[in-house]
Formats: sequence, structure tokens, C-alpha cells
Amino acid sequence: MLFKNITILDEQFQTRENMYVGVKGDRIAYIGNRMPEEDFGEEYDGTGRLLMTAFYNAHAHSPMMMMRGYGENLALSDWLNTRIFPFEDKLTGEAVYYSTLLAMAESARFGIVSTSDMYYFCEDMARAVEASGAKANISRSITSFAEGSVKENDSYKEAVELVRNYHGAADGRILIDASIHAEYTNTPVSVWEVAEYAAEYGINMHIHISETQSEHEECKMRHEGRTPVRYLDDLGVFGTRTTAAHCVWVEDEDIDILAERGVTVASCPVSNLKLASGVCNVPKLLSRGVNVAIGTDSVASNNSLNFIEEMKFFALVNKGQQHDPTLITPAETLRAATQAGAFAQGRADCGVLKEGGKADLIVLDTALPHMKPVHDLATNVVYSASGSDVVLTMCDGRVLYRDGLYLTVDIEKAIAETEAACRKILAQL
Amino acid sequence: MLFKNITILDEQFQTRENMYVGVKGDRIAYIGNRMPEEDFGEEYDGTGRLLMTAFYNAHAHSPMMMMRGYGENLALSDWLNTRIFPFEDKLTGEAVYYSTLLAMAESARFGIVSTSDMYYFCEDMARAVEASGAKANISRSITSFAEGSVKENDSYKEAVELVRNYHGAADGRILIDASIHAEYTNTPVSVWEVAEYAAEYGINMHIHISETQSEHEECKMRHEGRTPVRYLDDLGVFGTRTTAAHCVWVEDEDIDILAERGVTVASCPVSNLKLASGVCNVPKLLSRGVNVAIGTDSVASNNSLNFIEEMKFFALVNKGQQHDPTLITPAETLRAATQAGAFAQGRADCGVLKEGGKADLIVLDTALPHMKPVHDLATNVVYSASGSDVVLTMCDGRVLYRDGLYLTVDIEKAIAETEAACRKILAQL
Repeated sequence: MLFKNITILDEQFQTRENMYVGVKGDRIAYIGNRMPEEDFGEEYDGTGRLLMTAFYNAHAHSPMMMMRGYGENLALSDWLNTRIFPFEDKLTGEAVYYSTLLAMAESARFGIVSTSDMYYFCEDMARAVEASGAKANISRSITSFAEGSVKENDSYKEAVELVRNYHGAADGRILIDASIHAEYTNTPVSVWEVAEYAAEYGINMHIHISETQSEHEECKMRHEGRTPVRYLDDLGVFGTRTTAAHCVWVEDEDIDILAERGVTVASCPVSNLKLASGVCNVPKLLSRGVNVAIGTDSVASNNSLNFIEEMKFFALVNKGQQHDPTLITPAETLRAATQAGAFAQGRADCGVLKEGGKADLIVLDTALPHMKPVHDLATNVVYSASGSDVVLTMCDGRVLYRDGLYLTVDIEKAIAETEAACRKILAQL
Repeated sequence: MLFKNITILDEQFQTRENMYVGVKGDRIAYIGNRMPEEDFGEEYDGTGRLLMTAFYNAHAHSPMMMMRGYGENLALSDWLNTRIFPFEDKLTGEAVYYSTLLAMAESARFGIVSTSDMYYFCEDMARAVEASGAKANISRSITSFAEGSVKENDSYKEAVELVRNYHGAADGRILIDASIHAEYTNTPVSVWEVAEYAAEYGINMHIHISETQSEHEECKMRHEGRTPVRYLDDLGVFGTRTTAAHCVWVEDEDIDILAERGVTVASCPVSNLKLASGVCNVPKLLSRGVNVAIGTDSVASNNSLNFIEEMKFFALVNKGQQHDPTLITPAETLRAATQAGAFAQGRADCGVLKEGGKADLIVLDTALPHMKPVHDLATNVVYSASGSDVVLTMCDGRVLYRDGLYLTVDIEKAIAETEAACRKILAQL
């Protein structure tokens, strides 16, 4: 496909007008201000439109799609114990497959091409991601409260099996990460053993860290004053490329460790506000050189995958929390939504609009009233755009969503099957 | 028009499916679960759609449309002094007319039918609102630092003239309010005199109160420890129906006064976060019986009129700020976005979906992936919907926006003229 006469946000998120961008296979083959000689197939008229790199969702639980709006206005423990856990207890592989498929469709609609996705029934998730044409780093999250080795647990065996069967599948669109659910849901032995298998297979790690104050403080009580970051570092967790979701309550020494170990923080501002967990101090993390990406968390606590909206929350809650309107520039927000997420997922050549890079692209309609006037286009994308302004989403050169149509997912079926699975589960509760 | 087979959110924001809603003239003439015998003209197929009352924007400065994204990431004083004030100094009536027209189009696109709009060049604003088919409570905000009476000031004369020429114009769509810009921008005499003219003409009052901590504290230093609310109450400002924008820093005794005087607080969560002013304590205001509505403030500090997004911020920042996820239900949010705003504007029969009420209605597309599944539809509207899910906006029975088309505004012209006005002003700076 050749995007013609289109405005782009370049690698620095600067505006360049009247550009031509040619896609060949799964790569961006040409970026220039002249019509290329090479034939790239379909010509896309970019008048009144913006082309930029697509979004990378650094923390999600796609199958929780079924629990969107289920269990609202509850304290965290009530929410988990009376709504989420009983519902999850009834899940099936089929329910997870269609929920993930629906999540991938919604992701494409909002410009997300790749998701760091932690849950279980992961083979069903992988099949859905493969069918959807999207990318995902899928991890079977492990919890273990029992003494002794975790290696005989079904979850551990599933995790290892998943790596063998799906790591690098679908032309590399699917990667498998290791996952320790969190410090408070695992014994030191299980943390150690999962870290070891991540190192053995050379795969990434995905983990929840310091989401709530109580979790953070209780860890210190359990482990001789050590914070979750310190404790996990002592057990060798950060020896591989790691995404740490939330990090709302990390302390100064934790930030030093995160920076030193190259850990990515996946900040989930909407979920953290909605569950009243707090606000991740992104300006401080960035100033210390930590890679900060953006995650939606699950739609059970968001309640959407609207990534443009998530970017606005990301920037604004930090201005508000620090009482400083100068914090977090639009370029920093866009970088977190794109490059930082791709880096966290270990996806080379992704997340940057450049020749030779993967063709993970979105087109926004910028001719709409709420995008006018334009003093700075990147600012309008972060603060003025609506999630639905995405009119085209391309992943590895393949169009997943365009003008209301889902080109890889039978959307009616995905919705109907997800709703049917919901009804079936609710009938058992 | 007759909406057929449509789901509605009723007066209590409960879902009722397969309903029929008939509109006659500017009123809702029929709501029922059967096809009415009366002919209401065009039949609208409501399959997969939701009908609800439209939104009332309780605090805005529409002509600042031109300054969207102009002056970002600045401290408040820099923002005002280096960007906003110099720009405003070059405004013209024509620039204000087209900016307001564009703001009304964007409002309609996001489901807002009526705006409490404080600015100057108000006759130009009124002409634009009239042409747009929308409603507005327009106020010429008065600032006065000089000793003596404000009555000889041009701003005061303009305000009085505006009431004479436009109060109740366009079949009552346009109402004129009085406006004291704020405590810190007026002398006690000017506050007193403007309050007096509001009482004399029997019109509403619109005023900024305790937006920033410094403004709040400096008032106490200037006025023997009295807060802005106390000081303004002593000068008789709340003798007429009043909208107090922001109220981020109000104290307990202030809240008692606001409740007793029936003052509406227009909370502007996005603007307050973006300018790092703080978070209005909405749960406390509601628990004391204060009418709380929602405002976008201007797009210079928002940067959109996306009211669904504003509702999400409204609910979430309060959960986050109070560390309590149970605060602010979807119904409370929807009431603030509709009934509370209509009440603040003094618009009888508005803001509630009922027979005999004004036909201020919006239709949302609820068949989209991000609105599925449905455990509770009101929850999905507040937390999952995207601003652009609004597919029809009707004001007083007239369709302003439908499926991407602006039926009352020449949108290309409004955008082009606003952009031209911007360029002209920027060339002078």
C-alpha cells in the first residue's frame, strides 16, 4: 500500500506534511516527500489524515473482556472476591478464545497492534491472536502459595509448554513471556524458579509490582523491609527483559534498580484511578531513565481499550498529581504509547516510523472539528483526538481495521460468542 | 421523529429495551413500549442503539477554540501572560463568531446541546449559537480593578445591553447570564453592582470560584480571612441562581453556603488536571446536597469538548483522589452531565427523558465492540463509550448532528474561517 499526500508524525513526533509512505510486505519500504517510482499496490489518499506508528499496549488481560462493567463501584477485595474470582472460576477455553478475539478487534479499532497479555488458557489466547492478525506477548501468569517447587504445578507446565508451542508463532507476531503474577501471590521458591526458566528460554518477564500501597507495605513486612522491587531483584527476576506493571508505590531505591536493570514500567493510569490504587510517578521514572510504557490493564477495571483516551489520562494525572502543568510533554506520551511498549515486548524494528521498520501503522482522521485548529499536531493527537478517530490500523503490513470494518475478525460472531459465554458463566453463579 | 425499537436510559438511568419515543415540535410527546398511534414523521430504527438525554456543558469559553493546543506545558501564569492574554488582545467579532460556531458543531458531535458560556464579544457568540441551533447561557464576564462604580465600564454596558437584546432569543434557546469573572479580578463594588443587576433582571450568575489554591488563599489574606465563597455571599452574589465553576479549594463552611444558596458547582476535571489546579471534591459536595454539574472549560485547557471522556475523568479522578473506588456511581455521573447542568442553566423541562420534556436527545451506537458485553448499560456509557459513539444529537426537536453530518453548520466554512482568524491573529503577535 502507498499512503499518498499524508501528514506523518516522524520519529521525533514532529509533523511532516504531504508525505508518501510505501509498505512492502511487513515493512515500511519508503518514506519521502515525492511519489516513489516503485509500485506499492493500492494508493491511499491521505488528504486530511495523519499517519503515525501504531500503539503497543504494555499491560492487559484480554479475556477479561467478559467482565467489562461486571462488578462496579466496589472496594478492591470485594471486587475480586465477590465478582472477578467466582466468574473466572467458570471460564472455559472457548470463552477465552472469543473474548480475546473481541479484545483484538477492539484493540485494532483503537489503534493498538500489539499487546502484552497476561492470563491463563493461553493457548486459546494465542489461537485468537493468530486469527486476528495482531501481535501479542502472551504470558501464563503463575501464582503459587504452596511450599516447595512450582515445577510440578499445572500452571508451570502450561507455561513451559506454551513457550515450546507458540514462542515466535505466526511469523513472530506471537511471543511468549514468562510471568510471575506478583510478589504477594508467590513463594520465594516459585519466583526463583520462574525467573530461572525465563533465563533458560531467553524470554521476557511480565509481572505486577507495587500496584497498591497495602501490597507494597505488606511485602516489606514479610521480607525484612525489602520492597517488592528489591525482593524480586534479589531473586534474579530482572535478569531478563522485564515489564513491571503499575509501579504506583515504588520508592527511590526501587527506581534505581528498575533503571539499572532496564526494566520497563507499564503505567496503567485509568485502571489505577478506577480502582483507587494511586498514581504512578511517571515524571520521576523518566527523569531517572526508566523506560515507561502505557497499559490499559483489563477492561474489567478500565473499561475500554481506548488508547488515545489512555494517553490523555497518562499525561494529565501526572500533571495533576505533581501540581505541575509542565510535566509530560505530548512527545513523551507518544513515545510511551509506541516505542517504549515495542521495546518492552522485545520487538525490534517496531514502534518507530522509519524505513525498514515494521509496518505497524495507524491513520487518524484529522479533518474533524475537534482536531482544529492545529497549532501542534502531536498535541492535538494526545489531548484532542477521540479514540474513534483511528480510521485504519495496520499490523505487519496487513490492514486489520478500516473505516468501521474489521478485516480479520468476524465481529458479529466474536460479540455473539462472547455474550453467550458470559450468559453461560453467569447462569452458574 | 419516532425512535423505534430503541433502548433508552430512563429518568433513573435504568435501561429499558425496545422502546418507542416520539418527538413533536420541541418536545418529547411519547415514551412507551408500543408503537404509538400518532404519526411523528420520520421513523428512526433504534436497533443496536441507545437513546438518552443530551449533555449540558456547565462551564465553557467557546471562542477559545482558536487557542486549542496553543501554549502547552506551561505554568498557569506563563500560559496566561505569554500565550492566552496576548492572543485574546487581538480578537475580533468575526473570529469569535466562527470559533463559537465551530465549538457548537464540536459540541453537537459529542452530544452537548447547551453550554454555559462565559466570554466577551457576546453578541457575536449569540449570533453563532442562534445559527447553530444549539442552546447557550451566554455571559459577558466582568473584571474590574478600578475604584468606584463599574457601571460606566464598557463591559458592564455590554452585559446590560446583551440581556436586553438576547435574553430569551431564538425561542428561548439563548439565555443571558450575569458574570463576575472571579473574586480576584474584581473590586467589592463591582461584585456588588453586578450581583445587583443580576437580581434586577432576574438572570443567573456565572462565576469562577476557588480554581487554584493561591487564588483561594490570597482572597483570605485580602478579605479578613474570608474565603471566596464567604466573601461573595456577603456581597449578595448568590441571591440569584448561580453556577460556580471549579470550586477545587472550597472549605467545609463554603460547602454549607453553596448548599444553602442552591449554587451549582460546575466541576471541570480535565482542565483542573491539565492546569494542575487540583481535584474538586465532588463526593463531599454531593453528600452535602450541592448540585454538581460538569463543564469542559475551554479547549485551550482541555483540549476537546468530548463530554463522554469528561464524564470518565469526572468519576475516576474522584475515586483516585479519595482512595475509594466505591465513590461516584455511573448514575451520579450521568445526572451531573444532564439534569444538574440543565438545572444550573435554569432550563425547565430539560435534562430529563420524560414525556413533555424538551426533546434534547442523543443516540449512541451501542453495537460497537467496545460496548460489549453489557452487564449494565449506564456503566458502559460512562466508562467504555468513546466520545464519537454519538451518532445523532437533537436540540429542541431539531437534529443538529447525524452520522458525521452537521445539519445546521457549514462545517468546512466554520473550520476555514476559524483557521484564517487564527493565522491573522498569530501574524500580529
